[in-house]
Amino acid sequence: MEQISNYINANEKQYREKWFEALRIPSVSAQPEHKDDVKKMANWLADYIRNELHFESRVISTDHHPLVYGESPKIEGAPTILFYGHFDVQPVDPIHEWISPPFEPTIRNGNVYCRGADDDKGQLLTHLFSVKSFIETQTPLPVQIKYILEGEEEVGSKSLAQFLLKEENRQLLAADVIIVSDNTMISFEKPTITYGLRGLAGFELTLIGPNRDLHSGLFGGSVYNPAIALSKIIAAIIDENGKIQIPEFYDDIIDITDLEHKAFANLDVDEKEFLAAVGLKDNFGEPEYTPIERRCGRPSFDINGLTSGYQGNGSKTIIPAWASAKFTFRLVPNQTPEKITKNVREFIEKRLPPGIQMKLEYNHGAPGMVVPLDSQYVTAAAKSLEKIFQHKIVFTRDGGSIPIVAELKDKLKSEVLLIGFGFDDDAIHSPNEKFALESFRRGIQTSAALIEEIGKLQLS
Amino acid sequence: MEQISNYINANEKQYREKWFEALRIPSVSAQPEHKDDVKKMANWLADYIRNELHFESRVISTDHHPLVYGESPKIEGAPTILFYGHFDVQPVDPIHEWISPPFEPTIRNGNVYCRGADDDKGQLLTHLFSVKSFIETQTPLPVQIKYILEGEEEVGSKSLAQFLLKEENRQLLAADVIIVSDNTMISFEKPTITYGLRGLAGFELTLIGPNRDLHSGLFGGSVYNPAIALSKIIAAIIDENGKIQIPEFYDDIIDITDLEHKAFANLDVDEKEFLAAVGLKDNFGEPEYTPIERRCGRPSFDINGLTSGYQGNGSKTIIPAWASAKFTFRLVPNQTPEKITKNVREFIEKRLPPGIQMKLEYNHGAPGMVVPLDSQYVTAAAKSLEKIFQHKIVFTRDGGSIPIVAELKDKLKSEVLLIGFGFDDDAIHSPNEKFALESFRRGIQTSAALIEEIGKLQLS
Repeated sequence: MEQISNYINANEKQYREKWFEALRIPSVSAQPEHKDDVKKMANWLADYIRNELHFESRVISTDHHPLVYGESPKIEGAPTILFYGHFDVQPVDPIHEWISPPFEPTIRNGNVYCRGADDDKGQLLTHLFSVKSFIETQTPLPVQIKYILEGEEEVGSKSLAQFLLKEENRQLLAADVIIVSDNTMISFEKPTITYGLRGLAGFELTLIGPNRDLHSGLFGGSVYNPAIALSKIIAAIIDENGKIQIPEFYDDIIDITDLEHKAFANLDVDEKEFLAAVGLKDNFGEPEYTPIERRCGRPSFDINGLTSGYQGNGSKTIIPAWASAKFTFRLVPNQTPEKITKNVREFIEKRLPPGIQMKLEYNHGAPGMVVPLDSQYVTAAAKSLEKIFQHKIVFTRDGGSIPIVAELKDKLKSEVLLIGFGFDDDAIHSPNEKFALESFRRGIQTSAALIEEIGKLQLS
Repeated sequence: MEQISNYINANEKQYREKWFEALRIPSVSAQPEHKDDVKKMANWLADYIRNELHFESRVISTDHHPLVYGESPKIEGAPTILFYGHFDVQPVDPIHEWISPPFEPTIRNGNVYCRGADDDKGQLLTHLFSVKSFIETQTPLPVQIKYILEGEEEVGSKSLAQFLLKEENRQLLAADVIIVSDNTMISFEKPTITYGLRGLAGFELTLIGPNRDLHSGLFGGSVYNPAIALSKIIAAIIDENGKIQIPEFYDDIIDITDLEHKAFANLDVDEKEFLAAVGLKDNFGEPEYTPIERRCGRPSFDINGLTSGYQGNGSKTIIPAWASAKFTFRLVPNQTPEKITKNVREFIEKRLPPGIQMKLEYNHGAPGMVVPLDSQYVTAAAKSLEKIFQHKIVFTRDGGSIPIVAELKDKLKSEVLLIGFGFDDDAIHSPNEKFALESFRRGIQTSAALIEEIGKLQLS
């Protein structure tokens, strides 16, 4: 293993160049104008797996964005790892807030700034580059490696979910453990294994009033303003203590256990520093939970966007014809998007004022998940992380959602390991997304160590 | 007068062509990219007055958009009329909702569709074209005519207000009566004299949370979402009965008198039809007032625009860094924008949740006004309207605001006549603004008749 570790350190620059190549492809899945870029990114990955790792690989067409599949030769008796990652990225707006161009990787203070630097190109590539170090040092792989990489994670992973519906595809992806790096660690001093993810239910609500924008002088005071209606409905969804007012919302929740309360407390997060990093001084939320519990182990409600009426310079004295909000609930086990959707619809319908029509679209979602901690793969991951980071690992739950991970776990009946190399302040859905060069290097090292550790395991 | 009336009818097409020429100039005052178009429009008007009416005229530069002034030779002993109008127009978005291009006048069903067709190019030109008919028929004008035309009415009339601060300018504009056509009539069967206008107080509120958009998974539940904060504050401003909750809001109001209640009832507005024209079935507002009273004689609150977070296709799971709303109050005598502004600021400050900063800008405004009905100019206007429309006139108050009119009345100490030729469904701040060809023709005829009637008056 020393040879591999040395190889990785010696070739950091070459890895970086390849990473930058991938980052320059603006594979934004949400925006139709970037459809070809997502495809280009898929080809780039399939080519890398084929040409650099000498594995079989292929791009799999779907109804939307393609998948990439790759696999090493089977090794009789050895475990199989399925690495999952996504090569699509979030949109970049507000674009004027980027310090350097969003698709030109730029190094500042040991960080690489670029859309996708962390989420998820930077993280997924660690698991390709680790394998490359085995190949180049002619170290036999002690496990079979499979990759399933998708281009739709940021828009709901529909094509991969559909792919998993076929038995033959499930056999293709069959593995002993699924490894995912699409989340965060607390710090280099607290390398982290994530044992839970929040779920998601995302909506778009449009409230429609008059058949056109009206003059607020000629009509104001006598017709209901859709933007006011929207504000009143949003305001009613959550109270000042962060309690969500949708009926039955909390009914199915598995509450945080005493053990978990202790584990969260042990993370010893500096909340002041955490907030300061995003320019805030004040927390918000359910008073009976700590802030980290609120964002990792409790459900939440957020408006993601508001649109109504005149948004240009100056003023326009109108009653807008319509107003819309994009909003999401983060869910925890055992809430389901289906039940939330039904109750949200009823909640809004009940509050529709006279003269206002509604259109509610359910965009995407997934239930939350937690994974067992008493597994040999978790032990292997802990060993690898502790070797590379030279600190004891901690366990946490992640406030984010990777809906497809719950789906993969369920459909492939495999264990899941969530090992994030990013940090919470990597700005992964914001302007100036970053990933530390050191996170990237240690990610590759950890991935190589993990392959070695899992190679030592006896299959049950 | 028959000669003049015949001339107007015979030359309708020529008038129309000139009107269309003016409509094709996209003089949007709110948008800096149209600054030159506003200037072009000013030159067009000054040229018309000089070349077609043979009056003195000039374009007056200001810190922002120019003014146009014109005057006929003084007539000893005869009254002086000051015609006020504005040649700037509202922005055109949402542009995709226009059936024909917003700056290409297009005739459909006897209406001319174009931004500015009614507000205010169509209406102000009636008072230039009426004078043209005196000139062309070589009928001596029985009054002195002055024009003050501005290019900033839609953005607050600051330059004209500033112009009025100088005594020499007030002397220049001195007149016995100010005539304004920038509002509506009920119908051809109910030609209308407007004896009141609502005031206005317009604001832009921005609520600022984190220093960038945040990932709603990593942060959701533990920081206050600015778009939720904005919704809660907006929701608190007005209740379900249309009562505005800003402290002291109703304290200074002169309530609608019994006589006015009767006059409003006499207008006999078909509310069902009024609503159906804009695709609505349901009214809203203060239950103790009729709908027409709510929109003409009572104050109101409206959101004009909402902006926050991601507004593109698909979803983006963020907590937006900020959220903003443009909103306006319509005021009635004796509310003042100054007091409203102070109380609005306090109301919002009191409700700011933890972690949210505010920026409140007061954009523009004016108090409301009512004018006396026992004046010889009102009688002259009634005679002229009844002659052209062959129906008895009605009196009403207008829900819209022409802030500069209150200012002109106050600074020039002149009477004001508000004679609107437009209709409530002319969509003046909306896509597909229109003005009926017949409104245009009758407007010119009424203006000519009014000049004649005022010429007969004895100066007091």
